[in-house]
Amino acid sequence: MPDLRFFRRSGPFTLSEIALHLDADDLSPDRGIISIHDIGDLDSAEPGQISVFTDTRYLDGLTRTRAAAVICKRGFTHHSVDSARLMFVKDPRLAYALAGHLFYPQQPLESGVHPTAHVDHTATIGHGSQIDVGAVIGRDVQIGRGCRVGPNTVLGDGVLLGDDSKIGANSSISHALIGRRVEIETGVTIGSQGFGFVPGHAGLMRMLQLGRVVVEDDVQIGANCTIDRGATGDTVIGSGTVIDNLVHIAHNVRMGRLCVICAQAGIAGSTEIGDGVMMGGQVGVGDHLRVGAGAKIAAKSGVVRDVDVNAVVGGYPAVPIKNWHRQTIGLGRLFNGALGNSAKE
Amino acid sequence: MPDLRFFRRSGPFTLSEIALHLDADDLSPDRGIISIHDIGDLDSAEPGQISVFTDTRYLDGLTRTRAAAVICKRGFTHHSVDSARLMFVKDPRLAYALAGHLFYPQQPLESGVHPTAHVDHTATIGHGSQIDVGAVIGRDVQIGRGCRVGPNTVLGDGVLLGDDSKIGANSSISHALIGRRVEIETGVTIGSQGFGFVPGHAGLMRMLQLGRVVVEDDVQIGANCTIDRGATGDTVIGSGTVIDNLVHIAHNVRMGRLCVICAQAGIAGSTEIGDGVMMGGQVGVGDHLRVGAGAKIAAKSGVVRDVDVNAVVGGYPAVPIKNWHRQTIGLGRLFNGALGNSAKE
Amino acid sequence: MPDLRFFRRSGPFTLSEIALHLDADDLSPDRGIISIHDIGDLDSAEPGQISVFTDTRYLDGLTRTRAAAVICKRGFTHHSVDSARLMFVKDPRLAYALAGHLFYPQQPLESGVHPTAHVDHTATIGHGSQIDVGAVIGRDVQIGRGCRVGPNTVLGDGVLLGDDSKIGANSSISHALIGRRVEIETGVTIGSQGFGFVPGHAGLMRMLQLGRVVVEDDVQIGANCTIDRGATGDTVIGSGTVIDNLVHIAHNVRMGRLCVICAQAGIAGSTEIGDGVMMGGQVGVGDHLRVGAGAKIAAKSGVVRDVDVNAVVGGYPAVPIKNWHRQTIGLGRLFNGALGNSAKE
Repeated sequence: MPDLRFFRRSGPFTLSEIALHLDADDLSPDRGIISIHDIGDLDSAEPGQISVFTDTRYLDGLTRTRAAAVICKRGFTHHSVDSARLMFVKDPRLAYALAGHLFYPQQPLESGVHPTAHVDHTATIGHGSQIDVGAVIGRDVQIGRGCRVGPNTVLGDGVLLGDDSKIGANSSISHALIGRRVEIETGVTIGSQGFGFVPGHAGLMRMLQLGRVVVEDDVQIGANCTIDRGATGDTVIGSGTVIDNLVHIAHNVRMGRLCVICAQAGIAGSTEIGDGVMMGGQVGVGDHLRVGAGAKIAAKSGVVRDVDVNAVVGGYPAVPIKNWHRQTIGLGRLFNGALGNSAKE
Repeated sequence: MPDLRFFRRSGPFTLSEIALHLDADDLSPDRGIISIHDIGDLDSAEPGQISVFTDTRYLDGLTRTRAAAVICKRGFTHHSVDSARLMFVKDPRLAYALAGHLFYPQQPLESGVHPTAHVDHTATIGHGSQIDVGAVIGRDVQIGRGCRVGPNTVLGDGVLLGDDSKIGANSSISHALIGRRVEIETGVTIGSQGFGFVPGHAGLMRMLQLGRVVVEDDVQIGANCTIDRGATGDTVIGSGTVIDNLVHIAHNVRMGRLCVICAQAGIAGSTEIGDGVMMGGQVGVGDHLRVGAGAKIAAKSGVVRDVDVNAVVGGYPAVPIKNWHRQTIGLGRLFNGALGNSAKE
Repeated sequence: MPDLRFFRRSGPFTLSEIALHLDADDLSPDRGIISIHDIGDLDSAEPGQISVFTDTRYLDGLTRTRAAAVICKRGFTHHSVDSARLMFVKDPRLAYALAGHLFYPQQPLESGVHPTAHVDHTATIGHGSQIDVGAVIGRDVQIGRGCRVGPNTVLGDGVLLGDDSKIGANSSISHALIGRRVEIETGVTIGSQGFGFVPGHAGLMRMLQLGRVVVEDDVQIGANCTIDRGATGDTVIGSGTVIDNLVHIAHNVRMGRLCVICAQAGIAGSTEIGDGVMMGGQVGVGDHLRVGAGAKIAAKSGVVRDVDVNAVVGGYPAVPIKNWHRQTIGLGRLFNGALGNSAKE
């Protein structure tokens, strides 16, 4: 159960209330009476908690759990499980996530500007927004309603922050238009200069970086990421895209909607990433490439050519994932014998 | 055209004024009259803007552009392009970069120490420098003239910052001598402890890190980079070197002049990097190695041996780039058939 | 010799005092008189300094050094070296590290809360702790004795910081229980949301991240690292583990004791890392894996399967290191000729 030093819990709720919230069928005759006070994993749940059953591999856990109720998929039956304790839904993982949000709702903001924050007199701040200790809000910044700007975070001149967007501590945002319901973690840099130079009379001269960063609605950006602004035109992160920690996105990258970019990936300048692309951790994508919508790139791959729509690629340089698997298996057979390519010696 | 919320434009300038600034030949008879108010890409430029033509692949764009004038290479002619609209220079990309700096000059600093900044009374700050909101300047820090220390950035005791150097927001600099005209982005750490330990009586004991970081003139350091100080002696970044975001440079690395280090590269302890080395994104270089001057290292390579002067290497482990290409092509042929090593299945 | 702008030196000490501190045998007849004022490398040491001799490769340096005394291994003799200048110990590197700490002891803290720091009235701060300029200490935070919280660092509500732990500037810590004698560098994020989503009705819905980060005693965490809190349950860093810069540790990773994790490594969610594991720079480890105690993972490897106790692996995907070496050598022979796989062309 979550540490209440860090999380505030709502409830308790009856099974009926929960079922209503999750759009679930609940067959328990006592559903209006049984009180649930928390969520918990099958193995560690205590009486009075609700859990989830997502995979028949965990059937053992299901039969032994002490949870008062368990969310499972519609249609599931098993002779050794009392269906009176089950709550049936279409998508158990989603329902359990919703139950989490029911018991641990987002805390209300502490509306207002902390006296130690520094807000330029030309900035506007929407109703109900919270500007934390030591935050710095530049000239002509426009912050929507229900936003949070974390402690010691800096918004440079002209930045727009849409309604209900949240930024953690110690982040630095400039030259950026941020949409609604965007979540930006701590230590993030957005709007830094892109990395473009021309050889000049005395060394390298930086190309002026005169573009912006456009972060569309519902984007999530992990801790200590860096997103450079465009050289001319914009760097764009499409709506609903989620980005893990320590990811680098270079100038003029145009990323589509609903992408999933895992930690420490890096995307070089002017590359276009289609909608729904998934990228594993530590992936690198070269500059001026196109990654088609729906493509999947295995962790740590190095992409040096365009990737087709819905393609699945892996390796360095990245090739279709089947080819990569054949190569790694073949290499093991060729040089290490039949069992060579296992992690055991 | 740049978003004037974020950028302040100068001008307009006549073609003659621009030609003078760019050391260009302008054949237009009206060059003293035609007024240019902005720069713009060939494709999107509007009347009244100046653009650049860098590559015959873009000839189509050149013939169709609405730009009032286009910078191109001396000697260029084409039957379908009216040379009266062309401005001839030796190096179009450099000239266009200079034009950018003409229309979007660096904004003057707001000289002075913000009342919320904390400057130790033993620190000295040169004429015209700007110390932003919440910046922290330690004991005996010496800041030159025309410097900027961004919001909430921290300069530890004894740090030197040369004339005309700029540091973004939320950066942390200690144990460092920074040269002139250095640009450091946001979220950067310079001067942190190197990663060196000896097995001790009770676990690992850190070797004291008693060195410094020396950043020479005209260096640029990207967002969220980390540069450790030397263990004994210095970590050195040579003059004119440019470093992209999220790069790690370990203790006692000695990097030469005019190097180009792309994002997320990492260089391990005590390695020497010669002048003019270029390193792609996510490159890793082992410790105690020497990378010769002028060497080029392909993106994502893992360098485990010394690299010769002017060598071009790639792969993991890195080998001469031709060998690496032969290996990746050969692997594809061997295990995937003749066309196996393409990104298409 | 260290730059005294950045480091404060103690001493001088007589050879006898040093020998006592290092548990060393000192054969010098003048050991009670000879005064040593600093440490220094064999090559650069000046008279009055003490140095160390760790490897017979440096015998030349030993015979030529100007150091007044040299720490070396018990039993070492050489006809050309005057043993009166040697100080004999069991482990020269450790002894030299101890000598470093003798001459450059940790500076005493400046106990107290800086007036510009913001400490919630419900927080408690132990005796002798130093809360720096602009630091932000949230509700119910408990800080032990002898701690330091650096400038502009933010501790979120409920965070625990054990005795004698130090955090650098501009770091952001939330949802975390930090042990004793922990050192956290600048720009670090601890306690950020893990990267877990379920497809929802309108895009990706984040799984609530209701766990914590538990950092045990004597851990060291490098600059700009990110450590996510658990989804349910904890992300754990075992005691004595040392982590270099820009490392990413995902939610619910359980790392053992005395691990060494080099820069830019990344460990995906729920992976278990045994005691004493060593990971080179830029290593990636997949999610839900087990890396056995004592395993060593070569720099830049991509680990996609469990790793056995004490195994040594390398490559992408990682295999036993001998197999990887055979593969890279074999590849060179196959496609580049016998000498192909060298860094020289």
